[in-house]
Parts: sequence; C-alpha cells; structure tokens
Amino acid sequence: MCRIALDVMGGDYAPHSTLEGAGLALAAHDDLYLLLVGDETRLKSLVAHFGIRGDLAARTEIVHAPSVVTMEDKATSILKDKKDSSIRIAAQLVRDGRADGVVSMGHTGAAMVASKMILGTLPGVDRPCLASVMPNMIGGPTVLLDVGANLDSKPEHIAQFALMGALYAEEVLGIKRPKVGILSVGEEDGKGTDTTKSAAQVIKQLDLNFGGNAEGRDIWNGNFDVIACDGFVGNVVLKSSEALAEGILLGLRDSIMQGWLSQLGGMLAKPAMRRFMKKLDYVEYGGAPLLGVKGVSIIGHGRSNGRAVSSAIRAALLGCEHHVVERIQDSLAVLLSQATPT
Amino acid sequence: MCRIALDVMGGDYAPHSTLEGAGLALAAHDDLYLLLVGDETRLKSLVAHFGIRGDLAARTEIVHAPSVVTMEDKATSILKDKKDSSIRIAAQLVRDGRADGVVSMGHTGAAMVASKMILGTLPGVDRPCLASVMPNMIGGPTVLLDVGANLDSKPEHIAQFALMGALYAEEVLGIKRPKVGILSVGEEDGKGTDTTKSAAQVIKQLDLNFGGNAEGRDIWNGNFDVIACDGFVGNVVLKSSEALAEGILLGLRDSIMQGWLSQLGGMLAKPAMRRFMKKLDYVEYGGAPLLGVKGVSIIGHGRSNGRAVSSAIRAALLGCEHHVVERIQDSLAVLLSQATPT
Repeated sequence: MCRIALDVMGGDYAPHSTLEGAGLALAAHDDLYLLLVGDETRLKSLVAHFGIRGDLAARTEIVHAPSVVTMEDKATSILKDKKDSSIRIAAQLVRDGRADGVVSMGHTGAAMVASKMILGTLPGVDRPCLASVMPNMIGGPTVLLDVGANLDSKPEHIAQFALMGALYAEEVLGIKRPKVGILSVGEEDGKGTDTTKSAAQVIKQLDLNFGGNAEGRDIWNGNFDVIACDGFVGNVVLKSSEALAEGILLGLRDSIMQGWLSQLGGMLAKPAMRRFMKKLDYVEYGGAPLLGVKGVSIIGHGRSNGRAVSSAIRAALLGCEHHVVERIQDSLAVLLSQATPT
Repeated sequence: MCRIALDVMGGDYAPHSTLEGAGLALAAHDDLYLLLVGDETRLKSLVAHFGIRGDLAARTEIVHAPSVVTMEDKATSILKDKKDSSIRIAAQLVRDGRADGVVSMGHTGAAMVASKMILGTLPGVDRPCLASVMPNMIGGPTVLLDVGANLDSKPEHIAQFALMGALYAEEVLGIKRPKVGILSVGEEDGKGTDTTKSAAQVIKQLDLNFGGNAEGRDIWNGNFDVIACDGFVGNVVLKSSEALAEGILLGLRDSIMQGWLSQLGGMLAKPAMRRFMKKLDYVEYGGAPLLGVKGVSIIGHGRSNGRAVSSAIRAALLGCEHHVVERIQDSLAVLLSQATPT
C-alpha cells in the first residue's frame, strides 16, 4: 500500500477537481491510500459526492488544514503566515513518514518551496529540479528538465538533472534506457555554451544512454526521451509552448466557427481533432515531478481537471512503488564518487 | 530607387522560388531594382519564365556567381573555398555600394557570416543579432531577438538587441512606439538572472517604451512588440516553436484524414483553417533581419516559397527606404553616450 498526501485545496477548480481525481485514482489503484489534506468540515461533506464511499473511503483519511495558499500569496508564505496551509501540511506528512509522496495542483512556487524546505534535498543533490513531461509528436513523452527556474545552473547541476530525468523516465514512464540529451543551439558537440559543453563531459562519464546535444525541435520530434537544461531556458520554452499550442487550437476553432459551412465541417472533424489533441494533452502524464527531494513530489497544473489530478496521483504512486527517490539517491552517490569536478 | 542584391541560388527551392519571388516583388514595387546573383547562364535562361520581362526586367541585372553554399558546407566556407559563392558576392555588392541591401534564403550560418564579415559591424554594435518576426495570436508580429545564437550575451548586448529590435519594429513593421520586453522567467522586476536584471537597468535609461520582463507566453499573446534575449534561449525557443506548430498542424491533418466523415469535415473547414494558418505564416513577415551590420541584410527560411521570397525582398526594401541601418547607428551613438556601464 502506498500512501499519498493530496493537497485537496490547491488548484483552480479545487476542491472539486482534486476530489474527483482522488475518487478516480482510488477506483483505479487498489494499493493506493490517500491522505486528503484540507478543510475538514468542507471535505467531510464533499467526499461522498465524488464517489469516495465504502471500500474507497476506507483507503482515505482527512487531515485538517485550515488555510490555503492562493495565487496572491508569495511562494515563501508557507514558511511564515501560511504554516497551516494544505500544501505545507501535506508535505509535512511525507517528512513525518505518514505519507510516501505529496501531490499538489496549487501555487507552483509554494509547492516547490514546501517540497524543498519541508522534505529537504537528497544528499548529493545541489538543486532539486522540476521536470515537465511533454507529449511529443510521435505519441510518447519527452521529459524536459529543469523547467522550475533554477537559474545559472552549473555543468554538474545539468548533469544531475539529466540523471534524475533518466531515472524518472525509466521508472515512472516505463522507457527502457531513455535517450538523454543536453539542450543546445546545434547538434554538433562543439555547439553550445561552456556550461552545456562541460555538462556533456560530466554526463559522458555516467552510465546513461547519452545522445549528445538536443535542439529546440527535439523537444517535440521524439528524438530524445530526456532533455536537460538550465531552468531559465526550460521555463521559457515550457511557457512559450503552452501559449503557442493553446493559441493554435483556439485560433483554429475561432476561425472554423466563423461560417456555417466550416462549422459543419468542424463538427464532422471534431472526433478526429479531439483524438489528436488528446495526444498533446499534459493530462495524460500527470503533472511535473520535483526531483531531488526526500520524497515523491508531483506538482500539477493549476487548471487540472479530475482526470489530470488522477494522473498526477498515479505518477506519485508509480514513483513510490518504483522507489524513484531511493534510486536517485543511489545513482547520485555513484555520480559523486565517479565524476571529475569541472 | 532601392537596390537589393538577391542570392538567387540560396534556398531549398532555388533558383525557382527566388526568381518567382523576384518577379512578384518587382511587380509590386516600382522603386525596386534587383541584382540577381547566381549562375549567369542558368539565370539568363530562367528569368523570363518567372515573369521578369520588359519593364520588370529593366529593373534587374544578373551578377555572375559560379558557386553556391550548400547545407553540407560550413558557415565559414564563404571565407575560404566558397569565396565566389552567390551569398558572398551578394554581400560584396552591398559592401561596394552597388546595392543597399542583401536577401538570402540559403545557408543561415553562411548568410550571417557573409553579412558580418563582408558588410562589417556598425560602430558601437558589439554583436549583430538575428531577429525573428513571430506571428502572434492577436494577428500581429512580435519581434524576438537574438535568435541567431549569440551566446553568453552581456546586459549591454541584450539592451542593444532591444534597441535594434524596436527600431526595426517601428520602421519596417510600422508599429508606433513598440513595447519592448526582456525575456525572463517571471513578470516581476526581481525575477531573472543577474544578466536580465542588469539589461533592464540599461534599457530603462533609453528612450524606449519598456514594459519590463516578458515571459515565454508573451512571445505569442501580443503583450509585447519586441522581446530581447540571449541567443541561446532565443534559438531554442524559435526551433522548438517551429517544430511544435508544424507538429500540431500535421498531426491534426493526419488525424482528420483517418476517416471519411472527418475527411469531409476537414474539406468543409479547410478554407477557415487555411485562413487561420495564414496568420501564423512566417511568409507574411519576410524573413529574419540581421541587425547591427553595415547594410540591410534579410535572411529567409530555407523552405521559402516565392511569396516568402517576395516578402523578404519587401522587408529589405522597407529597411532601405526607412534608413534602418542609419537609424540604428545614430541611436547606438546616443546609447553609448548615455548608458552607464554595468
């Protein structure tokens, strides 16, 4: 049985989306035990509405948290006036050994601070990093990390990101010997900054399936399974891609809705378009793992619906079952003992 | 009369696409004189096929260049064994005062090297930069620069990119007092690297409509007209965006083609989809200007069709007519005299 603490109050549509996701995840995974963290009175009256009854309810407990971190709060508020917030209390459950992992769809910054400060960083990890599982054009996932704005990463940080991303891809996404790349401005070894070139040297010493430099287009074409980069470029690419994909899909829809003939066409083509858009959907891959902290931590999109929450819980469950945290810790110990400082 | 040197041999579909574009541009602009640079014998036999006859032909001349830089060549080949290549000879025409600007759809690196080394850099410009005119979701252009892989840019370089991008947006794209941003990982002033924060300080001293930090999504939402960044992130975002947009459109098409009902729907919705895709089309904005060199230089996409070539020639023409090079030179002189070193 794996125990996951869910920040039920975090997310644009919480607690409804999170409870719906909890219900879906409990029904799908017999070995899942959920600690539902949030306003006790409110949650008690709501859980049954979301199908969490009988056998499912028996695998849950409600843990009271009186406050919520809102979008207006600073990320560091959990260290000061929001010490009793659902995200902080959910992280504390992992720290205290009452849960194996934590899942939040709330304030990304607060969830990162909670995971880093409350769970703490694994020995040997200089910087925990946020990985984004991008749906690529050949229908699989490509892990891009760091996207969590670790700025001015050093070569050894980027090598650690690569290693952690590879372990996540293998254990949670089920990719055998994932192909790892370093994000740069050209395929050739000589292309890139001193930092990316040194990072490549560090990664070459590790037991990874290293494919050299990846370019921007490789995030989407499926040529790599894991692409490591500094958090500045990762964050910019992630936000830019979300806006571009959404803009294209909304723009196409608006254009199609402008005439009755194309509206009819759009109706007929809708199932096919939906089928493709499902491939692009972040919902399938269940949120962004924060790697390098002492516990499984999955940070979902604020706009997550029930299905996305359920996927995020599933990702946390797989992370626990496959001992991703322990595997990262062990691999980093090897990395530290092998790698030549740069 | 503005004189533009066109590298007729450069581009995936050259010389046909380039001659088609030349014909379109000559027909559209009475004040355009084109120097067609390429294999003289071949061009002589081809020009008339592409509508370059009579009055139009009178505003052209063929300048012989025996060789072409291919995709297999290195960018620096123009300095060694490809000294007689069409792109180098086209750049030399500008250097020698026989042309006001140069346009190439060929090897991007070679076109950049030719412009930098043959035309030379404007006084006060530390690094010429490549600007990409991105079609944003509100139907206008957003200028992102540098996308040409100027690595490890210093704050003053990014400030120069911003200034050059703003002048280009105003003079060539017709945007009054363009809103300028610095690409970073958050809107707030405090977010970003030391480099982006220092660049903001330099830009604040200039007479620009400065909007502070831009995020990845701002490349697409039309919130900024000009976004300045280091060439590493700019290059990655450009390549990633091209692959993502193309992947979405091809993926949608493939999905629609998989059933007869959705095929019918796709047929009915096609004009509407085309209308939207035209908005996204880089073709409209005519290639990427290389800013900061002594002459107008427009570098187009290798895959440019005739219309794209014509747009690139138009961009070069506007650059000449609006004296973009002289305006950048004058503004940089002011920048240099005002800005405090950081």
